[in-house]
Amino acid sequence: MKKIYTLALATLMFCSYNASAQNKEQRLTPEVMAKLFPTPVVSPDYNKDGSVTFRYKSEVAKTVQLDCQMFSEKKDMVKDDKNVWSITVTPQVPDIYPYCFIVDGKQVADPANMFIFPNEGFKNSLCDVRGDAPTMQDLQNVPHGKVSYRYYNSTTYGFDRPMCVYTPAGYDPAGSETYPVLYLIHGMTDTYETWFKVGRMNNIMDNLIAQGLANKMIVVMPYANAVPEMQNRKIKGDFNVLGTDNFVKEIINDVIPFIEKNYKTKTDADNRAIAGFSLGGRQTLATGFGNPDVFHWVAAFAPAIFGGEWEKNFETGVYADVNVLKEKLKYMRLCCGTEDFLVESSRGLDKTLTEKGLKHVTYFPGGGHTWMNCRDYLELTVKDLFK
Amino acid sequence: MKKIYTLALATLMFCSYNASAQNKEQRLTPEVMAKLFPTPVVSPDYNKDGSVTFRYKSEVAKTVQLDCQMFSEKKDMVKDDKNVWSITVTPQVPDIYPYCFIVDGKQVADPANMFIFPNEGFKNSLCDVRGDAPTMQDLQNVPHGKVSYRYYNSTTYGFDRPMCVYTPAGYDPAGSETYPVLYLIHGMTDTYETWFKVGRMNNIMDNLIAQGLANKMIVVMPYANAVPEMQNRKIKGDFNVLGTDNFVKEIINDVIPFIEKNYKTKTDADNRAIAGFSLGGRQTLATGFGNPDVFHWVAAFAPAIFGGEWEKNFETGVYADVNVLKEKLKYMRLCCGTEDFLVESSRGLDKTLTEKGLKHVTYFPGGGHTWMNCRDYLELTVKDLFK
Repeated sequence: MKKIYTLALATLMFCSYNASAQNKEQRLTPEVMAKLFPTPVVSPDYNKDGSVTFRYKSEVAKTVQLDCQMFSEKKDMVKDDKNVWSITVTPQVPDIYPYCFIVDGKQVADPANMFIFPNEGFKNSLCDVRGDAPTMQDLQNVPHGKVSYRYYNSTTYGFDRPMCVYTPAGYDPAGSETYPVLYLIHGMTDTYETWFKVGRMNNIMDNLIAQGLANKMIVVMPYANAVPEMQNRKIKGDFNVLGTDNFVKEIINDVIPFIEKNYKTKTDADNRAIAGFSLGGRQTLATGFGNPDVFHWVAAFAPAIFGGEWEKNFETGVYADVNVLKEKLKYMRLCCGTEDFLVESSRGLDKTLTEKGLKHVTYFPGGGHTWMNCRDYLELTVKDLFK
Repeated sequence: MKKIYTLALATLMFCSYNASAQNKEQRLTPEVMAKLFPTPVVSPDYNKDGSVTFRYKSEVAKTVQLDCQMFSEKKDMVKDDKNVWSITVTPQVPDIYPYCFIVDGKQVADPANMFIFPNEGFKNSLCDVRGDAPTMQDLQNVPHGKVSYRYYNSTTYGFDRPMCVYTPAGYDPAGSETYPVLYLIHGMTDTYETWFKVGRMNNIMDNLIAQGLANKMIVVMPYANAVPEMQNRKIKGDFNVLGTDNFVKEIINDVIPFIEKNYKTKTDADNRAIAGFSLGGRQTLATGFGNPDVFHWVAAFAPAIFGGEWEKNFETGVYADVNVLKEKLKYMRLCCGTEDFLVESSRGLDKTLTEKGLKHVTYFPGGGHTWMNCRDYLELTVKDLFK
């Protein structure tokens, strides 16, 4: 099968873009095509025995390694006589692993893999290892919600901005049913697409809802970082990545009003949750703990808080008075991998919340600051929400 | 501004993913961060004078070039004393240009640029050069439609598949208004996302509709290539990229029924259009010319037809009898750049259609087999559709 596909592609590989293809060749003979386009490789190639083969073709590379979150170490790849570098590995756990190739010391996303990790600072590909039984993150044959790319006018920043919005299967914009809303925030250098494309939040929601394990809800994924577009528009600003004021302002003044105007939502704090990963966890805590009249459900995944902020923020007013939170919050979840470089902060926050008597649930599994962990955090959280 | 941003990022650059970051450092001092994460660069950097600076940081690269569709030649980049390679260029025409870096001979997408060209066979970044006045492809402050990622069960392939669906601003799933539908097909190695992410079809539609230049319509972008997912699922199949049978079957049996069940559509051939680029143009002709009872509007952009197929397909029954098409079709558009490697095929089709007396409009501007051209083809087409 692989052979037929490769042959067919090699025979007629005319890309939608290839600068070198802009000549007037009409007859695409195999010779012409071989000259115009390199022979494609299949990568990752998911083998029947459960192993995965990664391939990278280059005439000029001197060393190629696989850098995959499946492993803690980079793995050397080996070149065959057709200049295809490859390695076959057997994953221990079916999951979706970010990876790239290290080609002569430089990170390169897998050219043959369409699945890319949306990010501002690096380009990784995604290796989607499936097990014999489908998992929550897999696209299963169940009723599907949809993820919509929406554009709203941001009064905070003065230009139109994007967000992703998940609505569950059966969501009826004309019906009488209204839905609770989870605001779900990405990590630093991630984008509003990362929870969708890497977190596979739509599959997790579809599968949990189909199995009766989660309530139907709308999930809103805003873009926390306005800086790239401000730079493009040559707008001056104070770009303090740790500052949460503008983030909170935009959620309250722009994002929530847009959602509640355009979707069938329940509009009280009992039906609003906020959750976020890493820098998004920091923003989640500032927004959720800072606005107990807006959000009654808060979940922080490996939140990026530092140097005792878990205590100080209660004193400086970033978070509301703990007695107010104790009275109003319905739910607080804290998750962090024990190998996460931010775990000590999460332990600090856990301790502070316990000392202050703020009820919360924690999850400190193995694993690091990864999206493999993140998907588990989301699954655990949405099983609890609005119940 | 740039300096503040760069400093702030350098001070606290904790990515959502970085394998090397998985240690237990709690205090992220500048020294720790500098070790954990490379200093980020801004790229592309859109300067006030209209020029654009591309940057790529590497301690180990020996040569770095810019390969951008703005130019027909690669351009050498120069390294500074901080190991940042850069080049500043001045685009002649505001447009969205695919590009990559050639690092020691290997294509590398710009790590600092979140805008990626969705494709199965290469990884390019997108340079979005804006002019003083916004163009059709820019996100302007007008009412916005949305693009939704939908998942449907494909009876053709036996598994659930994705597509993108654009609905215009004001689309009301509960209202009495119904809409015509354009089925819009990507090129070879592109995906169902390419018309959205590279073609910016949502901005083009939003802006044309806001200016009264296009009718409101739904635009459906299916994924023509099922092979990658068949490979992932270890499903055997005949993967002839030039065969259009499965494509046509899936459009007729799966895609149209899904759309007409889930959206407020007009369901007659007078209100169905199909358009496609490159291999998608081939598929468009097979589907549209092959099913004149289903589609009355057909537009082919640099269609991938070869060796006289523009005549033969009328004889072999791939296309319907020309007299039937003459009677039924309301519209046929053919576009191709004069530097496109497929232009002779389009000239052949143009000639054949003229000889056979099938009314059609053509557009043969300069330019090659590019998405810069493609966006123009789409704009011209949707201005005409359903009028």
